[in-house]
Amino acid sequence: MAANFLRSGKKILAIGRNYLEHVKELSNQVPKEPFFFLKPTTSYVVSGGKVEIPKGTVVHHEVELGVIIGQGGRDISSQHAMSHIAGYALAIDMTARNMQDQVKKKGLPWSAAKGFDTFTPISEFIPAEQVPDAHNLRLWLKINGETKQDGTTADMMFRIPRLIEHVSSIMTLEEGDLLLTGTPSGVGPLVPGDAITAGLELPDGSKTLAELSLTAVQREGGYAFAP
Amino acid sequence: MAANFLRSGKKILAIGRNYLEHVKELSNQVPKEPFFFLKPTTSYVVSGGKVEIPKGTVVHHEVELGVIIGQGGRDISSQHAMSHIAGYALAIDMTARNMQDQVKKKGLPWSAAKGFDTFTPISEFIPAEQVPDAHNLRLWLKINGETKQDGTTADMMFRIPRLIEHVSSIMTLEEGDLLLTGTPSGVGPLVPGDAITAGLELPDGSKTLAELSLTAVQREGGYAFAP
Ligand SMILES: [Mg+2]
Ligand SMILES: [Mg+2]
Ligand SMILES: [Mg+2]
Repeated sequence: MAANFLRSGKKILAIGRNYLEHVKELSNQVPKEPFFFLKPTTSYVVSGGKVEIPKGTVVHHEVELGVIIGQGGRDISSQHAMSHIAGYALAIDMTARNMQDQVKKKGLPWSAAKGFDTFTPISEFIPAEQVPDAHNLRLWLKINGETKQDGTTADMMFRIPRLIEHVSSIMTLEEGDLLLTGTPSGVGPLVPGDAITAGLELPDGSKTLAELSLTAVQREGGYAFAP
Repeated sequence: MAANFLRSGKKILAIGRNYLEHVKELSNQVPKEPFFFLKPTTSYVVSGGKVEIPKGTVVHHEVELGVIIGQGGRDISSQHAMSHIAGYALAIDMTARNMQDQVKKKGLPWSAAKGFDTFTPISEFIPAEQVPDAHNLRLWLKINGETKQDGTTADMMFRIPRLIEHVSSIMTLEEGDLLLTGTPSGVGPLVPGDAITAGLELPDGSKTLAELSLTAVQREGGYAFAP
């Protein structure tokens, strides 16, 4: 069941550079077609939990709309893509930014920099019927009560049907897979002790679809990044 | 059950550049610590199946020893690592080499270049008890009967316990996860119609632990790589 994606889902596909203001803030190039990376489902952490900051890393928050696949498929056309969506979730694509900067320079994979345990805070499942228009939602993130990201999914450069068409032309999608759709601008670092809150709302503020609340802590043990 | 990893497993972690001769043949740098990327389990294909070559891509074979995790864990020390192994498998880490070359230059993720459907041919599960020494196995791959890769797992630069220690210091391992341990030299392209065979044997040739037999075909539809 897609509603149980947290346990049953096998993959997380995360789109990069899908909001123009975010592309600019990191001095990246605007992509000509969507691109994505994989995150492991072992990186999920639910609201109320802790986000661990691995030793030596600078961890950035990226608040994102998550799309949860219902009926899987391959070569799903953009015309049929929305019917493959079971629901949505609010997610944060945590990123060890200094590791990512280094692997980008070296031409190495992003998997570790994006895939640490607790690097994908995730809300409850939101049934698709509760979302009138996935391309018109407000997404925000605060650190210690201060707003850092406040965007709208209306600003996605590649919209959800195109993203599903693209990823399913490369890898088969399965029920419970999560597609992260990119982050608006305002990404920045967390430090241990930070309180992270985030929300997904209807654009007029009349309804909150999901909220997240987490605390940043130092990871004990584990990998230490030494640039 | 780890023996059912093909269906139940959630992730594939693939180590890069773990055999010196292979590092040299691609003019890459020798890594100071292991590095890895994720492949989706939707890339599995069993013996007798077809390996699809996506449009516009040059697909290389990389024959590898796969390690299947039994008891999962986090921060598994190299001392305890072997007890977390349920078994082994013979695998081929198919790679869209021209896509990978491009994303390496651009600092983009490897996920698509490594993650197409059918890009992880995989043998039956080999129980750990049947493998006297995982670091002393012969691995070979032939195209149309001609030997292309013929190596020994004795040549791994980072050995299996170190690999498990490394990856589990970044992401929790779960039962059924597959760890690909890198490829010996001799990688090269496939073309549609090629017959691919591969084997995993005891070093004295007294026993074949696993065999693979696949046919390369052109992928119909799907993503087209345009460099
Ligand atoms: Mg992101
Ligand atoms: Mg990657
Ligand atoms: Mg490989």
